[in-house]
Amino acid sequence: MTGTTGFIGLGLMGSPMAINLAKAGHRLRVYNRSPDKANPVQAHGALPCRTPADVAESGGIVVTMVADDAVLEKVTFGKDGFAHGLGRGGIHLSMSTISADTSRDLAARHRELGADYVAAPVFGRPNAAQAAKLWICQSGSAAAKQRVGPLLDAMGQGVYDFGEEVGAANVAKLAGNFMIAAALESMAEAYTLAEKHGLDRRMLSDFLTQTIFASPVYANYGGIVAAKQADWIGFVLRLALKDLNLVLDAAEAGRAPMPFANIVHDRLISAIAKGRGEEDWTAFTLGAVEDAGLPVAKSD
Amino acid sequence: MTGTTGFIGLGLMGSPMAINLAKAGHRLRVYNRSPDKANPVQAHGALPCRTPADVAESGGIVVTMVADDAVLEKVTFGKDGFAHGLGRGGIHLSMSTISADTSRDLAARHRELGADYVAAPVFGRPNAAQAAKLWICQSGSAAAKQRVGPLLDAMGQGVYDFGEEVGAANVAKLAGNFMIAAALESMAEAYTLAEKHGLDRRMLSDFLTQTIFASPVYANYGGIVAAKQADWIGFVLRLALKDLNLVLDAAEAGRAPMPFANIVHDRLISAIAKGRGEEDWTAFTLGAVEDAGLPVAKSD
Amino acid sequence: MTGTTGFIGLGLMGSPMAINLAKAGHRLRVYNRSPDKANPVQAHGALPCRTPADVAESGGIVVTMVADDAVLEKVTFGKDGFAHGLGRGGIHLSMSTISADTSRDLAARHRELGADYVAAPVFGRPNAAQAAKLWICQSGSAAAKQRVGPLLDAMGQGVYDFGEEVGAANVAKLAGNFMIAAALESMAEAYTLAEKHGLDRRMLSDFLTQTIFASPVYANYGGIVAAKQADWIGFVLRLALKDLNLVLDAAEAGRAPMPFANIVHDRLISAIAKGRGEEDWTAFTLGAVEDAGLPVAKSD
Amino acid sequence: MTGTTGFIGLGLMGSPMAINLAKAGHRLRVYNRSPDKANPVQAHGALPCRTPADVAESGGIVVTMVADDAVLEKVTFGKDGFAHGLGRGGIHLSMSTISADTSRDLAARHRELGADYVAAPVFGRPNAAQAAKLWICQSGSAAAKQRVGPLLDAMGQGVYDFGEEVGAANVAKLAGNFMIAAALESMAEAYTLAEKHGLDRRMLSDFLTQTIFASPVYANYGGIVAAKQADWIGFVLRLALKDLNLVLDAAEAGRAPMPFANIVHDRLISAIAKGRGEEDWTAFTLGAVEDAGLPVAKSD
Repeated sequence: MTGTTGFIGLGLMGSPMAINLAKAGHRLRVYNRSPDKANPVQAHGALPCRTPADVAESGGIVVTMVADDAVLEKVTFGKDGFAHGLGRGGIHLSMSTISADTSRDLAARHRELGADYVAAPVFGRPNAAQAAKLWICQSGSAAAKQRVGPLLDAMGQGVYDFGEEVGAANVAKLAGNFMIAAALESMAEAYTLAEKHGLDRRMLSDFLTQTIFASPVYANYGGIVAAKQADWIGFVLRLALKDLNLVLDAAEAGRAPMPFANIVHDRLISAIAKGRGEEDWTAFTLGAVEDAGLPVAKSD
Repeated sequence: MTGTTGFIGLGLMGSPMAINLAKAGHRLRVYNRSPDKANPVQAHGALPCRTPADVAESGGIVVTMVADDAVLEKVTFGKDGFAHGLGRGGIHLSMSTISADTSRDLAARHRELGADYVAAPVFGRPNAAQAAKLWICQSGSAAAKQRVGPLLDAMGQGVYDFGEEVGAANVAKLAGNFMIAAALESMAEAYTLAEKHGLDRRMLSDFLTQTIFASPVYANYGGIVAAKQADWIGFVLRLALKDLNLVLDAAEAGRAPMPFANIVHDRLISAIAKGRGEEDWTAFTLGAVEDAGLPVAKSD
Repeated sequence: MTGTTGFIGLGLMGSPMAINLAKAGHRLRVYNRSPDKANPVQAHGALPCRTPADVAESGGIVVTMVADDAVLEKVTFGKDGFAHGLGRGGIHLSMSTISADTSRDLAARHRELGADYVAAPVFGRPNAAQAAKLWICQSGSAAAKQRVGPLLDAMGQGVYDFGEEVGAANVAKLAGNFMIAAALESMAEAYTLAEKHGLDRRMLSDFLTQTIFASPVYANYGGIVAAKQADWIGFVLRLALKDLNLVLDAAEAGRAPMPFANIVHDRLISAIAKGRGEEDWTAFTLGAVEDAGLPVAKSD
Repeated sequence: MTGTTGFIGLGLMGSPMAINLAKAGHRLRVYNRSPDKANPVQAHGALPCRTPADVAESGGIVVTMVADDAVLEKVTFGKDGFAHGLGRGGIHLSMSTISADTSRDLAARHRELGADYVAAPVFGRPNAAQAAKLWICQSGSAAAKQRVGPLLDAMGQGVYDFGEEVGAANVAKLAGNFMIAAALESMAEAYTLAEKHGLDRRMLSDFLTQTIFASPVYANYGGIVAAKQADWIGFVLRLALKDLNLVLDAAEAGRAPMPFANIVHDRLISAIAKGRGEEDWTAFTLGAVEDAGLPVAKSD
């Protein structure tokens, strides 16, 4: 093995993650569906490849950070997929937000080829990816996790281990995503209640997110919910529905009712029905505003 | 005016708050329904009184920290209430969790007697009260707020101002309480989902509450929700229902639907129906656990 | 006793009910807040009275059909109330939609005066009242129920007995009202689902309400929900919220979570927030339509 | 063509439906996965076949009444499926509860072979199937609907037409199934409220289902919900979840939030989590009972 690492998926998150790997001295072979997305990381020395198969070295490591379960399956085991090239002794470091079932399925198929699989989904927005400040959950075999450790360290500020069952980290990621969405809805309801009683939404948000709720999630999103508008699109609402559906699929499979998740889900499909599918996903919080008969235009 | 301050309500929260006032040099006249609760603050020099009326000095300040709207109305304007003794130039510093309507009503009635009213509800549990680390919201006239400032500073670590409308701080308090309850339910659903997929509840809780949800509320409650059991009773569930009903009453009055609040409300009445009304209020999170067919016994 | 019966409350329901009593040969003394509402029943021989007290004969029967618990309390035990005039041996036949608690309270106070109380709320809209086709629930002492039997027979097509506990019939009425509201919401969701898949709302409604749901409630309301608009105001939305709150109060008192009731409640307050408080109460079903991004204008 | 009709799926519903066709003079070729299920209809002259393909005559009609979308796809276009044998001029009369998408997909694939497709799902339980009292929704081309008319008449008491778009009747069926489930939940909440206030569940159920809710659905299920127990298994709870998921999938595809459907869905997965997946589907109504802290044992 010549020591290059494969990286597939150079979107808003994948691109800065790959750059951080390059900066940390890892030699990368990269692939993205739209090839021009490879330019920034190429500027840091990465070698762009024409197919997913081309990024893999036998016995090496391939990192994936792609849109969804279907794309991941395709770049791994589809035509021109990298799995067979990775082969015996290789590791698939799978960092996308996907279902636990997909992780289990991919891991089993890699195992037949002699390769290992680590699930390592991340928390953080593009700016956190850029600053190598992602929080990472991991699950998989101890040996594989040890081997990918340096890569994870180069991309995140901390790694939390969820054991050897490969799907566990994916469940943790989905649980966390759900909690973020629930936090947004709870702020939307609270600030809307306050607005209807004459309070200033931002004043309330500032108070709560600087004191008892002073955490990254509330601090990041509080102002957006208060203003009823995001300044830019961090994550498209239509894709947030996909993530929420992964949560609800996991709830269904686990026979675990999640009433809050249902409400957020319905806010998302209602937002799409009202034409907000391509806005920032925080636009689902306008549901609470409209239900209360308030205008959704920016409040400040 | 001889410079003593009245203090009514020496419960789990009121007692340490009064002691902090005493420590800061304020001479107190105190009242509590059960007189023996006055002992600790008496040890710091406070003078126990036989009736609410006895704590007031004409033109002075009376602080109230009592159980609910009805008790507050009674100690203020009932037989032996302090309002008439407080009289012209006095200030009622009202720190209990009550409805905005009660604040508006009391303020109007005090005004007829020449007194002013400041709503100043607090966030924090008894240990925060003891450490003078409460977070305080205030609303009322600028002059009154200025005059009570030193008292608030002696009890809290920060004061956030919500303007001159006296009910505003009460709405802020209710909005915050709702958000805390919603955070608990969201953790209960997330951890239960995880448990049904084989994850360790505490491992997930530690990860989330040390990273993206690293805030006092999540840090305080995450371990309890993970363990399915509180070690002690910080706040009785039956009273938490009272607070949630204040939230829903405010939602009704403001015509603001709050679906998350309904769900938490139903968790609370279900918990009472199942015999948990006298447990710590976090026991409502067992609803999600039972709905998923899991045992509610302590998990670790 | 000279054999006249008192009747208080001559609204959309009370007026035809009183007329049916008069037609059946009962001599009536009637009272209504707006005196001109007495004209129609006066045309059938009823004697209009100036106060509630004036309708009562000692040891007689007084029927009440008023707006809410507060009005009922006032006409009964308020200044100029009829209770003292009714006195020993009298019966209060209480037919309004009120809480079980109000029934219990009034019954206890009547008992102190030697009078009895029968709760007998009704199901049916004004046209059913006119046709003497109301369905009536009753609860109270066997003797009192026997004595009011002929009156109920003159107003309804059937009487169902809920025993001696006076509040029982009120609970039955609230349970039924809730089920009607839930049926409306379920039709709204079903027809909206169908509309979004290209089906005709009325075609679906006709099918379901003529076959497996062929009952008065579905037949009466199906067409309105399908058309997204009532032709006239049968019951004002603002008052439907009052009734739903009686349901939720009973649920709270009984410690019985009712998630469907919460959803209908929120539909109602959202409808009021959007300016539909004075429309027919069926307008709450537009919530499902708007959540799906559909226009609320009449569909046919 | 010799004039025989194919019939696939001889379960609790399909068997009496096929027998009614035989009784009406239709010569049948039948197939069922477990061949012994064919005995009763064979007694009425039907010819049992070894594969789905064997039931089809070129240009004839094949009726399907199978468990779910996957089974239907398999018997139609899978190995030994009947589609190619049906061929040009044939009609697939598809009566199972399936998604509109499956209908559209099958119709398109049949069309390529020159065959037509009619969706005709039914409402009614096994005893209604036996009595030829099913209610049938149909959608498909006018010519095909005319040709299958005599078959439908032999199985049902009425056919409602939903136009030419083949998926429409499936949506109507799902909408109706949802409304049945919602009716059950609303009864469960209402009767539980009543029980907690001391009323007899059956007394209330009898009143409501004999008066304003006097329709087949409420009459059939009211007694079961009141008794908290079905006498026999009409439809297994686990399969009811499958149907509810078809509803929610349609809601997702149509971008139509259905809060009542979410609640029923969660009742179903909670019932499965508690071990009731193989009971009659009405057992999901015990959720409301347990939430209220009441025993679930039979109440009478």
